[in-house]
This record gives sequence, structure tokens and C-alpha cells, in this order.
Amino acid sequence: MRKLVVIGGSDAGISAALRAKELAPATEVTVVVADRYPNFSICGLPFYLSGEVPDWHTLAHRTARDIENEGVRLALDHLATSIDPVRKTVSVTSPGAEGQKLPYDRLIVATGARSIRPNIEGIELPAVFFLRWMDEAFAIEKFIREREPRSAVIVGAGYIGMEMADALAYRGLNVTVVEFLDSVLTTVDKEFGQRIEASLKAHGVKVNTGTTITGILQAGKELVVKGSSGFSTSADMVLVAVGAKPRTDLVGSAGIETGCKGAIKVDRTMATNVSDIYAAGDCVETWHRLLKQNTYLPLGTTAHKQGRVAGENAAGGNRKFQGSLGTQAVKILNLVVARTGLRDCEAIAAGLDPVTVEFEAWDHKAYYPGAQKLLIRLTGARGSGRLLGAQMLGHWQSEVSKRIDVFGAAIYNDMSIDDLNDLDLSYTPPLSSPWDPVQMSAQAWRRRVPGECESD
Amino acid sequence: MRKLVVIGGSDAGISAALRAKELAPATEVTVVVADRYPNFSICGLPFYLSGEVPDWHTLAHRTARDIENEGVRLALDHLATSIDPVRKTVSVTSPGAEGQKLPYDRLIVATGARSIRPNIEGIELPAVFFLRWMDEAFAIEKFIREREPRSAVIVGAGYIGMEMADALAYRGLNVTVVEFLDSVLTTVDKEFGQRIEASLKAHGVKVNTGTTITGILQAGKELVVKGSSGFSTSADMVLVAVGAKPRTDLVGSAGIETGCKGAIKVDRTMATNVSDIYAAGDCVETWHRLLKQNTYLPLGTTAHKQGRVAGENAAGGNRKFQGSLGTQAVKILNLVVARTGLRDCEAIAAGLDPVTVEFEAWDHKAYYPGAQKLLIRLTGARGSGRLLGAQMLGHWQSEVSKRIDVFGAAIYNDMSIDDLNDLDLSYTPPLSSPWDPVQMSAQAWRRRVPGECESD
Repeated sequence: MRKLVVIGGSDAGISAALRAKELAPATEVTVVVADRYPNFSICGLPFYLSGEVPDWHTLAHRTARDIENEGVRLALDHLATSIDPVRKTVSVTSPGAEGQKLPYDRLIVATGARSIRPNIEGIELPAVFFLRWMDEAFAIEKFIREREPRSAVIVGAGYIGMEMADALAYRGLNVTVVEFLDSVLTTVDKEFGQRIEASLKAHGVKVNTGTTITGILQAGKELVVKGSSGFSTSADMVLVAVGAKPRTDLVGSAGIETGCKGAIKVDRTMATNVSDIYAAGDCVETWHRLLKQNTYLPLGTTAHKQGRVAGENAAGGNRKFQGSLGTQAVKILNLVVARTGLRDCEAIAAGLDPVTVEFEAWDHKAYYPGAQKLLIRLTGARGSGRLLGAQMLGHWQSEVSKRIDVFGAAIYNDMSIDDLNDLDLSYTPPLSSPWDPVQMSAQAWRRRVPGECESD
Repeated sequence: MRKLVVIGGSDAGISAALRAKELAPATEVTVVVADRYPNFSICGLPFYLSGEVPDWHTLAHRTARDIENEGVRLALDHLATSIDPVRKTVSVTSPGAEGQKLPYDRLIVATGARSIRPNIEGIELPAVFFLRWMDEAFAIEKFIREREPRSAVIVGAGYIGMEMADALAYRGLNVTVVEFLDSVLTTVDKEFGQRIEASLKAHGVKVNTGTTITGILQAGKELVVKGSSGFSTSADMVLVAVGAKPRTDLVGSAGIETGCKGAIKVDRTMATNVSDIYAAGDCVETWHRLLKQNTYLPLGTTAHKQGRVAGENAAGGNRKFQGSLGTQAVKILNLVVARTGLRDCEAIAAGLDPVTVEFEAWDHKAYYPGAQKLLIRLTGARGSGRLLGAQMLGHWQSEVSKRIDVFGAAIYNDMSIDDLNDLDLSYTPPLSSPWDPVQMSAQAWRRRVPGECESD
């Protein structure tokens, strides 16, 4: 391979480019980047907007210079407009320049996702914002700095909605969250959503669940946000954060097949149906390791992994993406919520017979100062005791996210709930217990679901 | 089984008793406890002696009443003096009572370990202390309270020595640590030991490595501690913490075989060579999952696991102890040091060809406030890339101990270094990076040890 072109300069694209260059240094690797911000940590945008990250430049995983020092060419402010899979070229445009065609031997599509724009009256008003890309963050920052809004409505209580509720409250705004579903953060069970909602309310954030937004009206300098059941509130700004969908404008021109939620179909080598075209990141379907089927699960961790696999295979490797467990963590105020694997509802939809047991434990021996309660919701298969998933909620310094990773590593390796007791986990009184809470939750699950404890 | 007798009321003994009672509720379970403190968290004693745990009662994992409420009988202040494996009785004595013989159908020996008393002149002086059991802690606490010592010498820089250096410095004493080997905490590599030593010194603790204590002399109210190379210092008290050895006084009477470092030989069901006698905890040999042989590795986590297995099997089960990886963590001042699996020296001794690579990473995205550096020393097999071990050092709120557990779960499941990249680990900028430091260290290892990246 002489020429590799990567379309997209975020997590998946840059991972792919760097991995290919590392394994095949002679390859000419070009990354087409739609804006001026390659390899930015867009997961960090809420912390920029909260003011905790004063300089947005620090959000870069790597600077443009770092990437170019690895021998990867960056075509910044270049928009890919079509792919010709027969002649093997990508058409690109850039401001103030002629359109050009970039030839490739292999191509990686890593165009990411865009925010879903719901069909609501007033969604195009100037004080209504979305948040996924740097430019959107700059627009919000500029608005806050120049217009000094005192209140905000956040539509959607997913990860971005929750982080932005925290961020804007931290910045001193009066925040109202409006969520269509009946609890916040519905990526975890309602029992946890209710605790997050209570924590938000205790910090002065208003939360309205079960409320559908019907329209946004300009009323002088203010916006009036109207919703179902007579909901109406005024605010200086609105953030709409109701999810993301794959950005796949290019695939039609190339004949690339799409599937689940419009995401690009890929096999486990990250190859599309079109010869010499790979794809990775938030624009593709993701193999779920437990479900053993493709899903749409756009996450930064997955984008990095898929990009690395795509880059390795484009460079002549033969690596397979080993699948996602949907592992994720989010910090909201002083809480961290994390999950891996399947919840009851997802396991049932997959034809399994799950049991979820909630267990409360101290994050470390209670006699040592600063102990905090952790909540674990552990999901296993009723008959086999197979470990299916775990959710955890606790203080943000209670090692919640890496405890979830112990569950994640166990699920990755097809361990059972009983097997968790055999893991040799570390203990010192300031940080854990002789049975880590991970293992205590397994014992609690087994007390609720009696069965044979197998051993090899 | 009608009667189960357990000798020993610490981690292994109580775990065994409770597990047996849970699985065979009709069994009469008696635990012979040498002191009045069943099921105390002896790992917490340094924090009691530092003053951070004001009430020693809170060190109990469970109270005597909790245990008795589960139907387990506690014979407190009862010392087992011999075992008759033919008549199946245990002879016990207790203060102010006739000696008696307790009949058993099955017996579990969980007598723990005792501090090694090195052959040093003056070791029996009244201001020279050891620390393993509650009574020893009470003696130290009483001495500090009544005599108000201003200085202490700690002989031995292992876990207890390090925790007690932290504890006594926290309590305001001038602390001098003396270690025979050439760095502190030699359970981890010298590179980490040196950082711990630097941290201790920065907190005012004097550290003398490579120094052998030759004698302790009483000089008025003070002790003078003398050592090799002209070492001499005075102090108001001395703590000798040079390791532990199995407490196996009883085994001779029963014909129970011992092995490695005098510990009781057990198979993986925790059965001894004598019919119907099991053993568990700090008095037994421990199966090492990687070395596939028995070692002496007395740890609270292992004691709990072995006790649970012994209790389950004594109750008619058929469970195997799945082995230790030597996973351990310790907090020293603001640092946590943790390890799992093998270090270079241990891998070489086992006939392997290990490579250890040190890697430094931020514990979370550096742009988010409070980021701290982590150091990871990752050990893998040169040819196969098999994951052999990991050591980590970092700030005590950097999730060091649960990150080590991710490595521990990976080693448990025979993963390779490259496989670590496939784990779906959680990420949010305040707590990690899209590639967790665990995975970044795997990538750094592979850059240093080029080889095929295998994939299935």
C-alpha cells in the first residue's frame, strides 16, 4: 500500500492513521479533517464549558504537530464530498481552493456522528445549541461569555445532558433538565436514575422527566420552552442533547452499505462491503461481544479501538475488533455512574433470563476515614449463573469506574458470577475490603439466586 | 457432618465457619479463638495506632454477636493445644477452666501466622514491640498513650513497617526505618522502593537501607539501636516488623505435613494429608496460579478465599482454590503501591524470559483538574507476549488498586499483553483516558518488545 486516506480527524481517524503509519512507515497517510481541530477530546467539552478547563487547546489528545511528527499528513479544513471506489479517489473541497481528488490505495471512513436535531418548532433559533464538535462548543462559550445567560434548559438527560447540567450549574446558571423518558440517564436502571435526579435537585438543578418538548419560542431576549402536560419555562439558552446519529453522507457515492440506525456495516476487521474501504468509530455499527451481533454504540473508547484495528488491517494486518461491552462511566456532580455488559431489559430482549440484584457496600473498610457507600446492580443469567452485566453508582473517588472494569474484564473472559469470588483482587483498608465490593455483590447475587457453585 | 471445629478466629477461620454454616445449616460449628477478638481486621491495626481509627471495636469485620447470630459458636479465650486425628478431638484450655476435648467430624486449622522474632540482642526489652495480633496493638497503644514516646525505630520496611512508619509519623513521632535489604518495600521493584523512600524522607521519616540491626540496648529511659556499618540511633520505642511465619504448633500432634517455610501442606480443596482435616489462611501453603506450585504468601484476601473454600468442602462441597496472584496494595502517605502476578526476578526464577517496561501516564485526562502521574511496570514474556505481572505506583486517589485488579483479572484469564488493548474499559475525562493507562502500558511494552500482534 502506497497511499492511505483517512476521512475524519477525531478519535477513530487519528488512531487508524497512527496505527497504519506505525506498522507500515513507508505508506503515505493523509487524514482529511473537516475542521481545524484534529484529535480533540470532544468528551472534554462539558468541562471546557463549565470553566474547569480554561484553555480549549489542552483538550487535544495530541496536537497537529504531534501527529505530523509521526509522519501523518493532515488536510485541515478539508471536506470530503464523495468517494469514487472504482478510480479510488476521494473528492475534497477546502475554503478558497479548487476542489481536488485524493487518490488512495486504501481508505478509512471515520466521519463520526452528529447530534440528532429533533423536529421541534424553534429549534433553529440562535440561542438553541447542540454539542458534539468543537465549533458547537465555541458557539456556546461565546454566547455565555458575551450574553451572560442566567438560565438554561437542557433537552435530554443522557450523558451530554447530564454533564452539561453539572457544567452549567457549576458556572452559575439556573438549569432545567427536560427528559422525554421517565427517568434521567436511561442508559442505567431507573433506581440509579432516581438517585442522580435527587442529587441534581439537591444541587439546585430542576428536573422534569416524562416531558416532551413541543416548541421553543423567542419572547424578547428570552426563550420560552413548551412541553407536554402544560410544561412551560423561560430561559436564556437551550441545549438540545437527545443523542447522536452516524454521519454517513459520503457512503451513497461509494456504494457502502449501512445497517443498524444508518451506521456503516463493517465486519470484525472493520472492512466495509466495498473493496479497500474500511470504516471505524461513531459512523459504524459496533460488534457487541455478549450479544454477538452489531449494534449502534458510539463511544470514544470503541472509536479508538476500532480505528486502531482498521489502521492495522489497512496496513496489511489481520486483527479483529473484539467487541464492545458498552462499558461507560460518567461523573455527575459528586457521583460516578458506570456500567458494563447487559441490563435486565437488554438481556431479556436478547432472549436471556437475567436476574439483577442490587447490593450496597462501603467503598473501603468503614473504620478508615472517608468511607462512602457504593451501589452495585449485578446482572446474571438465572440458570447458568453467567455474568451478564454490572452497573455501579458511588462517590467519584470510590474507584467506581475501575471496579466496573473488573466486571468488564470478567465478562470479556466469559466468567460466571461465582467465578468473581476467585479473582485475586487487591486490598488495603483505605481502598477496599478483603472481599472487594465486586465480589461481595457476587455473593449477594448468589444468595438471592441459589444454585450450584461450580468449580473446575 | 454433625460437628465442625475451626481452630482460629481470624479471616480464614471465620470465613470457613460461616461458609460451612451457610451450606450445611444443621452442622454444629465451633470456632476456637485464642483471644477475645474474633474476626478483627488486623490489616487495620496501623490505622488504629495512627489515631485515624479512634475506636478499636470498629476494626471488627463482624462482631461476636454477628457471628453467633449466624449460628456459629465462638469459644473465646480458648487455646487449642493438640489434635487427636484418630479419636477426632481437639484439646483446648481456657483461663480458670478445666482442659477439655472438643469432638469433631471435620476440623479446619486456621491458626494464622506470627511475627518473626529475629535473633537480636535486646529483642525482649519492654519497649520493643511486634505487631500482628490485637494484644500486640493494645500494648503499643498503651505504651504510646502512657509513655508519650517521641521517637521510634522501625526494623523492617515491608508492608507493616511502611504502614507503621506512616502511622507513627502521623502521630507525631520521629521515625527511623532500618531495612536489611537495599531498598524499602522489596515486594515491588527497587524503582518503586526508591520513590517510596523519597516520599518518606520528604515527610521527615529517616530511612536506612542496607543496614542490619545487631543489637538493642537499654540506656536509661531510651533504647539504643545498633546496626551494621556503625549505625546507631536512640529511640523511645522499637517496632520489629521483619515478616511473618506460619503458626503451626498444633500440627505435630496430628501428623499434619508441612512444606514451604513450614506452612501446612494443602491440596487445592484445602485438605491436609490427614483425613477430615482442612487448613486455610496464613498457616498454609498457597497455590500460585501463575507458578502452578505452592508458595508461602500470607495475605488477608487469600485467607478469606481459602477459608471459604475449606468451609465449603468441609460441608460436603467440592470447590477448588483457584490460586493467588500475589495481588496486594498498600497506602503509604499519599502514595498507593500495588502489584499482581510476577516481577522479573520471580519470573526468571520460574524459568521464564520476562521483560519489564516502565510507563508513566496521567491517571485521567490532564486537562481535567487534579490529574496525577501513575507509574506502571508491566511484565510480559518476551516470546509469547504473555502477561505475567504488573506493578503500579500513584496517588492514593488515582484508582491504582482497582487498576491493578484489571491486570489481575486479565492474568487470571491467561490474557496476553496485546489482549489488554481489547478490553472494554470505562472512560470519562475526570477518571481515565480513552485508552486506560492499563492499556497504554501494554502498548508501551509492545513498542519495546516488537513481535506479532496476534488476534483470533
